[in-house]
Amino acid sequence: MELHIEDKKSLILAAYGKIPCDLAVTNIQLLNVFSGEVYPATVYIKGKFIAHVDIHNEPITKDKALKVLDGNQSFLIPGLIDAHEHIESSMMTPRNFAASVIVHGTTTVVTDPHEIANVYGLDGVRYMHDAASDVPMRQFIDIPSCVPAVPQMECAGADFTFEDILEVVDLPRVIGLGEVMDFVSVASAQDRMMNMIDTAKQHDLYIQGHAPFVSGRMLSAYICAGPKTCHESRSSEEAKEKLRNGMYVDARESSISKNVKAVWDGVKHMKFHDQLTLCTDDKEADDILHKGHMNDVVRSAIQAGMDPILAIRCATLHTAREIHAENLGAIAPGYIADFLLVDSLENIKPSHVFFEGELVAKDGKLCKEIEKKVYDLEQQNSVHIDYVKKEDLYVKAPIHEGKVMVNVMKYKTLTLSSTECIQIELQVKNGHIILDDPDLKFVAVIHRHNKIQRMSLGIVKGFGTVKGALASTVSHDSHNVTVVYDNVEDAWIALQELVSCKGGMSAVLDQKVLHTLALPLAGLMSLKSAEALSEDAKKMKEANRKLGLTQMENPLLRIVTLALPVVPEIKMSDTGYVDVFKREHIPLFVNI
Amino acid sequence: MELHIEDKKSLILAAYGKIPCDLAVTNIQLLNVFSGEVYPATVYIKGKFIAHVDIHNEPITKDKALKVLDGNQSFLIPGLIDAHEHIESSMMTPRNFAASVIVHGTTTVVTDPHEIANVYGLDGVRYMHDAASDVPMRQFIDIPSCVPAVPQMECAGADFTFEDILEVVDLPRVIGLGEVMDFVSVASAQDRMMNMIDTAKQHDLYIQGHAPFVSGRMLSAYICAGPKTCHESRSSEEAKEKLRNGMYVDARESSISKNVKAVWDGVKHMKFHDQLTLCTDDKEADDILHKGHMNDVVRSAIQAGMDPILAIRCATLHTAREIHAENLGAIAPGYIADFLLVDSLENIKPSHVFFEGELVAKDGKLCKEIEKKVYDLEQQNSVHIDYVKKEDLYVKAPIHEGKVMVNVMKYKTLTLSSTECIQIELQVKNGHIILDDPDLKFVAVIHRHNKIQRMSLGIVKGFGTVKGALASTVSHDSHNVTVVYDNVEDAWIALQELVSCKGGMSAVLDQKVLHTLALPLAGLMSLKSAEALSEDAKKMKEANRKLGLTQMENPLLRIVTLALPVVPEIKMSDTGYVDVFKREHIPLFVNI
Repeated sequence: MELHIEDKKSLILAAYGKIPCDLAVTNIQLLNVFSGEVYPATVYIKGKFIAHVDIHNEPITKDKALKVLDGNQSFLIPGLIDAHEHIESSMMTPRNFAASVIVHGTTTVVTDPHEIANVYGLDGVRYMHDAASDVPMRQFIDIPSCVPAVPQMECAGADFTFEDILEVVDLPRVIGLGEVMDFVSVASAQDRMMNMIDTAKQHDLYIQGHAPFVSGRMLSAYICAGPKTCHESRSSEEAKEKLRNGMYVDARESSISKNVKAVWDGVKHMKFHDQLTLCTDDKEADDILHKGHMNDVVRSAIQAGMDPILAIRCATLHTAREIHAENLGAIAPGYIADFLLVDSLENIKPSHVFFEGELVAKDGKLCKEIEKKVYDLEQQNSVHIDYVKKEDLYVKAPIHEGKVMVNVMKYKTLTLSSTECIQIELQVKNGHIILDDPDLKFVAVIHRHNKIQRMSLGIVKGFGTVKGALASTVSHDSHNVTVVYDNVEDAWIALQELVSCKGGMSAVLDQKVLHTLALPLAGLMSLKSAEALSEDAKKMKEANRKLGLTQMENPLLRIVTLALPVVPEIKMSDTGYVDVFKREHIPLFVNI
Repeated sequence: MELHIEDKKSLILAAYGKIPCDLAVTNIQLLNVFSGEVYPATVYIKGKFIAHVDIHNEPITKDKALKVLDGNQSFLIPGLIDAHEHIESSMMTPRNFAASVIVHGTTTVVTDPHEIANVYGLDGVRYMHDAASDVPMRQFIDIPSCVPAVPQMECAGADFTFEDILEVVDLPRVIGLGEVMDFVSVASAQDRMMNMIDTAKQHDLYIQGHAPFVSGRMLSAYICAGPKTCHESRSSEEAKEKLRNGMYVDARESSISKNVKAVWDGVKHMKFHDQLTLCTDDKEADDILHKGHMNDVVRSAIQAGMDPILAIRCATLHTAREIHAENLGAIAPGYIADFLLVDSLENIKPSHVFFEGELVAKDGKLCKEIEKKVYDLEQQNSVHIDYVKKEDLYVKAPIHEGKVMVNVMKYKTLTLSSTECIQIELQVKNGHIILDDPDLKFVAVIHRHNKIQRMSLGIVKGFGTVKGALASTVSHDSHNVTVVYDNVEDAWIALQELVSCKGGMSAVLDQKVLHTLALPLAGLMSLKSAEALSEDAKKMKEANRKLGLTQMENPLLRIVTLALPVVPEIKMSDTGYVDVFKREHIPLFVNI
């Protein structure tokens, strides 16, 4: 953040003591993230910035500070920064998300609005930016780089080229190119991603990476192309290799992926960790509400054995450097006055949260409610599936009666999203496929973005539901409608539910709706607060468990990756089955 | 350094192993500055960049690398980077300087052509840039910010405003605003420096600081204004305070200022040192030739107790980050292939020096001579003192005979450059001041830049010369001609010497020239190689010692700061005595 030259002059003069600062926070133990020391100090703030840090017990007179806050010997630490996340994953609007995380001390997040961009394109990116423009925290935006995730293999609501970047690159809080996840194209220097990265660099964006399981020469090629960060290290070896190769490793602790311990185990022997950061990636409202946000990730790092001072540094200064934010993430003259008062460096529960020099939360409560605002996009409908008729949900065979051999997407376990393609012989009656094994389900992926009228049908094994139908408009990454069902009646009811609530998730059993979670904003997000949403999501989880999804810690997450054609080996999009490695289609019927 | 997109594609494909790299350096111990580890590896280079680092002993076939170098178990470390220096202080041209430092493993320097800018203005900056454009090392340029050092109190050959920055900001190797040394103006937010810094920031230059003895609130004010680096820490306390306040501390080991040990002692207790770097500031040809360059600074750091791996990191990765050079200072995919092979991490004598992927020095010798080139500025004369007549060197009193009270610039010691103002009664004969104490000398500062015809006269005590005259066109920072003398005959001869060799330094005793060191380039630099210059400088030192300057390790440096009006308390410029703190003139004669 650059100051206007007149404000800068005031800051300089306030630092020098020639004019008073606005606030002095005294009687605190300063955590200096530059040196790793903790010592008594008084921190002076002028406007949105830190002007001076006094360690000599200078008397705080009216000509030095207009207001004084006694820190009661608390630790003063920088506001926490999330290196990578998707706010959409909280299922909250940017404003409700802000209200939920500020109280936990997260003053900055770097969010990649990749999900809403797959629905609403650049309008979605602009909405995420604008809706957070006046909240008491900083939501930096990385422009989504891979919309859709796998071109030609799926149809999302938008198709980003490098020219699209130029449309939003000048928004004030746009700082980076979001996770460059098409590592196959990047490592083979294909034009689409080369142009995207080149354009981003020309506009001084940092390039955020995404390279799960990428290693050796492929990793080198990927890094040479530009991305210098990655939040996808799951194993110790992976984290070690990436740090050694000069990447920033964002150790992730999302609601579902807990990687912090493995990452730390892989790098703790190193002398230096200044390219290690922390992130949430995807965190649910319920988790945020009850466990916390970045403070919970820091706690995980400490539990994994990291020195608390290093853990806090990873979540502040390191991240600021990673995203090229020059005056963020530390307590020093000229730095943005985002800081927390905490009683303990191990259990980061902020009694006070300051954002840009203002007290915005105290003892877990916002000091001032965030003003309610209504945005056009929140009122729009994104579920355009009127063209689908009930009978379209029957899987029609090329024969009228008898048996056919079909390709089936088989999940390897009840918790992981990886799959394999197997072949099964199935009965056909009246031209329709009949499932005789309760572990087999029909699946339909229905284009919902008004670009085309197209749906695909397939068979899935080992998905986990026992009976009924489960439908969702949250369906990474193109977020078409996915329905898994054993009978058309239930599926049809679930789809009607989604249409009537403008998107979300619906579970139907024996023609009764167990629960519908309404996510009317892009079919991805609720307009509810964290508290209300958390209750709603609990009911939805319960309904999913009733359908049989009892193995996953969060049963909401089973259906949402079924149509993600970057998770090997076979996934399904609105274009049909996709061979993830070959990027080719697989037909439903074998040899026909 | 950004690659053209086609070169980048080649780099990516070479990293991936799809096309061959140009070179593989194998059988080495890689110092990984990111992690601080040392391990066996093979480093693959494509063009000017590192493509891949293999740690799995992949066979090096022709389809992977066109050439192979066996490192014989040497350590492979990044090329060394000098965080701050003035090439003019070596008294060599940029090309001769390059030849002298490359063999020691310095592949990048950040030079502030402040000295030549005080003589030739922007033409001087352009010359320093252009003359180094094709040498096998990287000479980054910081645009001088304070020309002259103290406006109104001296007249240099140029007077830089923020608009001058715009004239050179787009030169390819311009990266920063050079040491912002007018900290008094900066800390009081005065317009000249505010505009300078603001302009620099708008053009993405980093702001290099210079804040000797600045502490407390003044330091905070200075940092708030923009400078985030400082190479002027002399004491442990100073280094500690600056690091704590978020500055990069460039620990200096120049030919004259040895600060590395004090700096390290002040910060070694800290957990983190990632904003600690190393620099030479001012290093003589003789020193470079016989001791080394940045490798000698690294050795000093190790002798001061720093872990060798950290010391090397300070001189590579830390500096690259400080100057915002994204792909410099480390061995990793996508980084510039500047690296050294050394037998020991403690005694950094490179057997091989690679710059941008090419072997440029081996066993202390350049692999290829640097092409001789002649530049206009090297042929020009910068010593314009024809207007001075011999009789102008007599110090005339306001009375014809008798005694007058005069202000005298008194050096506090025979080695430090700090002074105080004392008052002495002196004899006057025939209207001229007579010196009756051999410790008193006349001094003249003569404007030489053709801007004005002006000289000032004064009396100095404790300078150190016993007899004769010493004259110099090297005279920080405005580089007018300074002469210290006890008789006008010798002084006149010395001045004639300087005129005839287009500047330099001359010592005259009993009307005989002891030695003249010719520095025809701007009156600051020789056109000779390090070897020849070193011999010449030795003779000059010897001559200075004969005049009585026996106390200083380098007697050349006594006269060059006499006219530097930023060193307290009293100095002298072409405008007369200057009160350094008050920035006011002091008259020669008391109460007249």
